[in-house]
Amino acid sequence: MNMLVDGEWRTNAYETTDDDGSFDRQETTFRDRVRDDPDAEFQPEAGRYHLYVSYACPWAHRTLVTRALKGLEEAISVSVVDPYRGEDGWQFTPEKEGCTRDHVHDADYLRELYVRADPDVTARVTVPVLWDKREDTIVNNESREVMRMLDTEFDAVASRDVDLYPDGYREEIDRVIDEIYEPVNNGVYRAGFATKQDPYDEAIDELFEALDHWNGVLGDQRYLAGDRLTEADIAMFTTLVRFDNVYHTHFMCNVSQIRDYENLWPYLRDLYQTPGVADTVDMDHINEHYYTTHPDVNPHRIVARGPDLTFDASHDRGDLPGSPPTALEATSSDD
Amino acid sequence: MNMLVDGEWRTNAYETTDDDGSFDRQETTFRDRVRDDPDAEFQPEAGRYHLYVSYACPWAHRTLVTRALKGLEEAISVSVVDPYRGEDGWQFTPEKEGCTRDHVHDADYLRELYVRADPDVTARVTVPVLWDKREDTIVNNESREVMRMLDTEFDAVASRDVDLYPDGYREEIDRVIDEIYEPVNNGVYRAGFATKQDPYDEAIDELFEALDHWNGVLGDQRYLAGDRLTEADIAMFTTLVRFDNVYHTHFMCNVSQIRDYENLWPYLRDLYQTPGVADTVDMDHINEHYYTTHPDVNPHRIVARGPDLTFDASHDRGDLPGSPPTALEATSSDD
Repeated sequence: MNMLVDGEWRTNAYETTDDDGSFDRQETTFRDRVRDDPDAEFQPEAGRYHLYVSYACPWAHRTLVTRALKGLEEAISVSVVDPYRGEDGWQFTPEKEGCTRDHVHDADYLRELYVRADPDVTARVTVPVLWDKREDTIVNNESREVMRMLDTEFDAVASRDVDLYPDGYREEIDRVIDEIYEPVNNGVYRAGFATKQDPYDEAIDELFEALDHWNGVLGDQRYLAGDRLTEADIAMFTTLVRFDNVYHTHFMCNVSQIRDYENLWPYLRDLYQTPGVADTVDMDHINEHYYTTHPDVNPHRIVARGPDLTFDASHDRGDLPGSPPTALEATSSDD
Repeated sequence: MNMLVDGEWRTNAYETTDDDGSFDRQETTFRDRVRDDPDAEFQPEAGRYHLYVSYACPWAHRTLVTRALKGLEEAISVSVVDPYRGEDGWQFTPEKEGCTRDHVHDADYLRELYVRADPDVTARVTVPVLWDKREDTIVNNESREVMRMLDTEFDAVASRDVDLYPDGYREEIDRVIDEIYEPVNNGVYRAGFATKQDPYDEAIDELFEALDHWNGVLGDQRYLAGDRLTEADIAMFTTLVRFDNVYHTHFMCNVSQIRDYENLWPYLRDLYQTPGVADTVDMDHINEHYYTTHPDVNPHRIVARGPDLTFDASHDRGDLPGSPPTALEATSSDD
């Protein structure tokens, strides 16, 4: 894969799979934190921070959903890269539908921002990126941490009174996010990028065991961490919403579709219909990205048609214990 | 693709796709006929003919189903090639599960039989092959014609009184076989082997329009040509039975699974449960063949896990007008 090494762009700089054919995800690089604390280096302020995302990427999508649920659209601006990631990495192509220019520096490629933040950086160039316009640098590019910051540190500038990491649920939220990461969020990639049969089989076993487990859990409770919509649901949502169109076919996760699951499918629709979420889902960008960006998996870069999923269909999850924060009650009926 | 040219094996002898990126299936070569007629060159006789098949191949599968339904197992012997088709084409690997030696000439590769039949042959080396042991040659390698011959010309040596091309239905049977060939039987290949987006899109449109159409037809009648199980159903069956495991993922025919269809899925189970049919289905050979044989489509040759289809589940199609020939009544209840 391509990456920055000491500030220089290198193609084929590292192997995405180990010798045994299993996919190996590299760690993210920028790990500073915005904190709602007068002594903090990065303090929450409206207009100070900027998000770089791809609509295609499930990790970036976490931050878009959090931003929408919290009502941070006015406080934190966003630039959207081209869904196709070629030899030069994520690119700004404002002429393309759903894409934008780089509103901060008018860069052509996302990697330019990485080098601007650190001229000697050695890093994969990934989304999301939380950019500090005042210090002109990257605060953080780890999706779980950006999601947490937007959720817990920006209340003063958020337009909705929504807490996605509430007291009394925090341990469970962190446990669930930990528990679904390897088999589900990263599991689909481990299946799709495996170059040998054994690591594929292992990823598939773990993925569907986890999906079966959470499908069972969601028969008794509306959300993953109980009766509250939390960050854990956001982390699950961005994988599930891509599953039937992309992971099932492109990554050969074809044991079941999400819409075959008794509870996961209504749960996915419930989250999709939570006010603000649907607007963060761009299936065209999702499909184009995966099917055209990985010639090792899909050599002719043909975009699969995929099912026409009825995310708007009623879900009847309102009968289960729990409800979204009042500020997020769906305005349309779900029965 | 590899083929025989003037009796010599050539690798990359022809392009499987046209300049516009659409898959182009070459015609079969041997087109003689067995006829139940004292003047015919090839007359039906028990023990005279031999079938070369792959369990993986839907075209060869047609002849295996016909042989089973007619009760021709004693009259016509069978050799089964390795599901993996490599640089040397279909191969005999008797040590492998479900495969056999070449019972007629102990050849290593199927192409040896083609050259034996015609030393100067120019042909793709395909299954099925109907071989005449007495004349030591290939009678026919066109699946539709071999299916028809086994059905209509071998009654004298068949152990079951079954007619899959009955009077009064013949025009409709031929019409249906014609009608499903391009969008369905060949359509999945046109989708999977397209190298450009437009021919893929066209194949997908035609495929799912046809599946929707036949799903509707099968709401009112038990079989494709009406109330009788016929060759048309065999031609449809061998595509449908591979669909959810292979064509949906490997050939990106992922708009719907067969098990998503209200009538096609019970229809597929009905056919599967018709006595003799289940034994002709080898999902291991099917999966191994497709996922390992086309590196252009699946570069790492990883075999996708696929759904665990319940072909044996009850289907309730017995309530519709029509029934299989008496000799083929299922012995188990279907309700």
